[in-house]
Amino acid sequence: MKIIVIGSVAAGTSVAAKARRNTETAEITIYDRDEHISYSGCGIPYYLGTDIEEIDELTPRNAKWFKKRYNIDIHTKQEVLAVDVNKKQVTVKNLQTNEEYVDTYDKLVLATGASPIVPPISGVEKENVFSVRNIQNAAHIKQFMTMKQPKKAVIVGGGFIGIEVAESFLKLGMDVTLIDQEQQVMSSMDKDVTVWFEKYMKEKGVELLLGETVTNFAGDDVVTKVITASGKEIETDMVILSVGVRPNTALATQASIKLGDTGAIAVNNKMETSVENIYAVGDCAESFSRITGKKIYRPLGSTANKMGRIAGDSMTGGSLQFQGILGTGIFKFFDMSVAQTGLSEKEAIALGYDVEVLHNIKPNKPHYIQGSGEMVIKAIADRKDGRLLGVQIVGKEGVDKRIDVFATAISFGAKAEDLFHLDLAYAPPFSTTKDPVMYTGMALDNAMNQNRPLITPNQLQSRVNNGDNITIIDVRSKKDFEKSHVPGALHIPLGELREKATSLDKEISTVTYCNKGVSGNAGQNILINLGFKEVYNLSGGNKNYQMTVSE
Amino acid sequence: MKIIVIGSVAAGTSVAAKARRNTETAEITIYDRDEHISYSGCGIPYYLGTDIEEIDELTPRNAKWFKKRYNIDIHTKQEVLAVDVNKKQVTVKNLQTNEEYVDTYDKLVLATGASPIVPPISGVEKENVFSVRNIQNAAHIKQFMTMKQPKKAVIVGGGFIGIEVAESFLKLGMDVTLIDQEQQVMSSMDKDVTVWFEKYMKEKGVELLLGETVTNFAGDDVVTKVITASGKEIETDMVILSVGVRPNTALATQASIKLGDTGAIAVNNKMETSVENIYAVGDCAESFSRITGKKIYRPLGSTANKMGRIAGDSMTGGSLQFQGILGTGIFKFFDMSVAQTGLSEKEAIALGYDVEVLHNIKPNKPHYIQGSGEMVIKAIADRKDGRLLGVQIVGKEGVDKRIDVFATAISFGAKAEDLFHLDLAYAPPFSTTKDPVMYTGMALDNAMNQNRPLITPNQLQSRVNNGDNITIIDVRSKKDFEKSHVPGALHIPLGELREKATSLDKEISTVTYCNKGVSGNAGQNILINLGFKEVYNLSGGNKNYQMTVSE
Repeated sequence: MKIIVIGSVAAGTSVAAKARRNTETAEITIYDRDEHISYSGCGIPYYLGTDIEEIDELTPRNAKWFKKRYNIDIHTKQEVLAVDVNKKQVTVKNLQTNEEYVDTYDKLVLATGASPIVPPISGVEKENVFSVRNIQNAAHIKQFMTMKQPKKAVIVGGGFIGIEVAESFLKLGMDVTLIDQEQQVMSSMDKDVTVWFEKYMKEKGVELLLGETVTNFAGDDVVTKVITASGKEIETDMVILSVGVRPNTALATQASIKLGDTGAIAVNNKMETSVENIYAVGDCAESFSRITGKKIYRPLGSTANKMGRIAGDSMTGGSLQFQGILGTGIFKFFDMSVAQTGLSEKEAIALGYDVEVLHNIKPNKPHYIQGSGEMVIKAIADRKDGRLLGVQIVGKEGVDKRIDVFATAISFGAKAEDLFHLDLAYAPPFSTTKDPVMYTGMALDNAMNQNRPLITPNQLQSRVNNGDNITIIDVRSKKDFEKSHVPGALHIPLGELREKATSLDKEISTVTYCNKGVSGNAGQNILINLGFKEVYNLSGGNKNYQMTVSE
Repeated sequence: MKIIVIGSVAAGTSVAAKARRNTETAEITIYDRDEHISYSGCGIPYYLGTDIEEIDELTPRNAKWFKKRYNIDIHTKQEVLAVDVNKKQVTVKNLQTNEEYVDTYDKLVLATGASPIVPPISGVEKENVFSVRNIQNAAHIKQFMTMKQPKKAVIVGGGFIGIEVAESFLKLGMDVTLIDQEQQVMSSMDKDVTVWFEKYMKEKGVELLLGETVTNFAGDDVVTKVITASGKEIETDMVILSVGVRPNTALATQASIKLGDTGAIAVNNKMETSVENIYAVGDCAESFSRITGKKIYRPLGSTANKMGRIAGDSMTGGSLQFQGILGTGIFKFFDMSVAQTGLSEKEAIALGYDVEVLHNIKPNKPHYIQGSGEMVIKAIADRKDGRLLGVQIVGKEGVDKRIDVFATAISFGAKAEDLFHLDLAYAPPFSTTKDPVMYTGMALDNAMNQNRPLITPNQLQSRVNNGDNITIIDVRSKKDFEKSHVPGALHIPLGELREKATSLDKEISTVTYCNKGVSGNAGQNILINLGFKEVYNLSGGNKNYQMTVSE
């Protein structure tokens, strides 16, 4: 059997290695038009900063290594120009000699990756405008920075890469402006989550321009000013474009291989395309949601690796099948971590789910342990069956742990009520006796199944704006109340609530709240147990309200 | 309804708080013979060191707080002497006045906790021999240390507490000897895991005496020498006893409440004892394994909290039911973390499981990120159905994350093959592209389902000792081989294996290995694909072999 793989980064090399692990008899060849293979694209922002000194750190393996270990032939600077699916052959061009030649396959794998989107903005072609995608980009940017010592940078696009590069540049002492056309960074997340780290980004020195569109990269040879639709002019020495990627599908289209609705190459669970004996993996291929079953396009290194291994196994007789993804992602910005898995609230609502939403603000471990700090966990569950749909977390230490536990639970179809029963590892250096994951499950279960409903700050505000008759009760101390409170709230400290409840109207919708939600729930319990008809606890308390609504 | 709870630490206060959350009408009273309530026993080792300055940090809540928030009456220094199950009443003694009085209940909860085991060793009653269990113990030890400025300590018992106290004492500059009668510390774990951190404990300065029994605490008024069965004499200024706890069941026995085979109070899934309207929760109650369904006694704060909440819910009409535990635990020693969940190998074998065992040595994140370091993951799966039975991990950063992901997966009945499909959060500061959890699942699945069997160092050694005819192949570099290798191994670097395999006998059992297991697996794949009959990969490679067998 002869296997040809087009593309030698994460997905392509995974296919080849897994195929070889399964069989010694296949002839395995990889073509790549690029020079670098098997590199860590996710490491590039760290190379642009101070964390990685040598670019070789990002390309630990070369063609010789693959030959020796796996008997795989990797040919770089060789571009596959065309696929003939009937003859089962590819036309390859040697980019060094410009010679063209033909090779044949029994199994063909498209691991052609994705390319950074370059928005059609005037001046985008200037030499100090950079994308951040591959090793060449990285080397190019680094060279520019070494030569020109830029002091100011504009980053267009507030996704993972844009934010990570912002950190690297700030650490180099540069002025950083980050522009996003949405009213938030990280558009896959909800605004009431991103607001927590947008604030932190500003504190760390990022000039954050949200809801702004770049209209012009102005300057003579190089960009010296970035002009936005609202008329802002930002002086800069360089521009980083990080507005996303699109799948490289030209070869697939040429070979009449079907694309999916997402625009990426359509594949089945074995990573087979619409054409027999041709597979697609990694950033050029479509994925699907493990929660909804719907096709999605989420090009991530972790998924590329999975797809590659599955294709390599499948074409050599294995039984591995792709089981979909949750879209789990994480990034760090200085000492803040931001993570998500599964559906956001807006995504779940758009898909028609009736959602319960919790903002759970909890320390990662006891206050007396170094590294203790609060995290904000936003969790979404399906009211129909109680299943957890998605989680977003912002915090310092321990965010990665909780998102992975949530992702694992969601993978197994966990209901909110299951989380309390998890036997997670407790010792003071690592967590609180009940882990924040368990509290999240308990609060969602209470809301959905135990008549302890939650109301988010946004929901409360829109009911108030609607003119609904609502009693809002602040159960905190007088001092806390005076510092800030929800407009229109009555102040009844928790310790006096049992007594003063008699003077309240049990028939009117009531909202209780405290700082973060726990005492608000205690107040809610008291009123419900005293016969109040409808009592909500304000999700995330006053802290969340002030952050979300007052911003 | 009148609820009486006996015991006011983690479990007892959880019962009361949950009951109150469910109902305003119950009268809820807690009696405790002790002075301190709702404290963090797990925080005590940190108080004995330098992490916690004030003992109040461990007792953040007092009776007033519970009254105000939950309308719960907590009476301390009141010992319940007897329960009359027919009259539904308890006899209580006020330990301050010595008065006795009677109180009645509709629901009674035993949250009587556990007491440290004091071994019957001559001299154990001396005033510088301490247990570490409650706030009084902690205060007592601290006072002694402040007054006497001890320079040397002997710790008897190498469980969580003993090891955590050892760290605190070392940080204070003391000489620490830790004695355990087993040939290992942490008897719930396997020796081939504990050996990794026993080595680290010694490096950090602990004098570790394993397989030693203390026979005498010698000295006049105070212990000055600890004498062991093998004749060792260790000079010391103080002794810490941490050889485990036993459940406080005297009241239960007096009331004819059934104990389980573990010696703790038998309970059902609602935490009901054998006597109607009487519940037992926390360290006095029996638990059960979520994996095997068998009764076990694992007194941990995390479990106590769970049991308390379930009892409080159940007695007020809720539907919460205890779902068992995995025995998940974790501790830190300096910057090494050690964790376990589910069954150990020895436990699984004793229970009759046919186990597959993997030692997976992997970095927690890329080497170019600060905090990167290797962890050793030992994972046990059931060959019958592929289910994960248990995991033990030793490493630095990221151990708590992996153990919680494994614990979550095991809770949902995960098979080894499921782990590869998890969509865990990847970015360089947090993990490798494939997380160590995924590699663990892949290797176990390969072993059980893809004819890529593993052999542990201990299994290999016993086959060699048995005189079995085995070809052992070291696929590493010459330099590595010369540094250390498995006795009797042939040296064939991986790159030459395809070629040199022709000179080997395919019918003889063969073992391949490298440093940690990955290249060993690559060698195994080559030989199996070339038709070798039986090829094992050495679990954890030479690194694990040298650590486990050569010690």
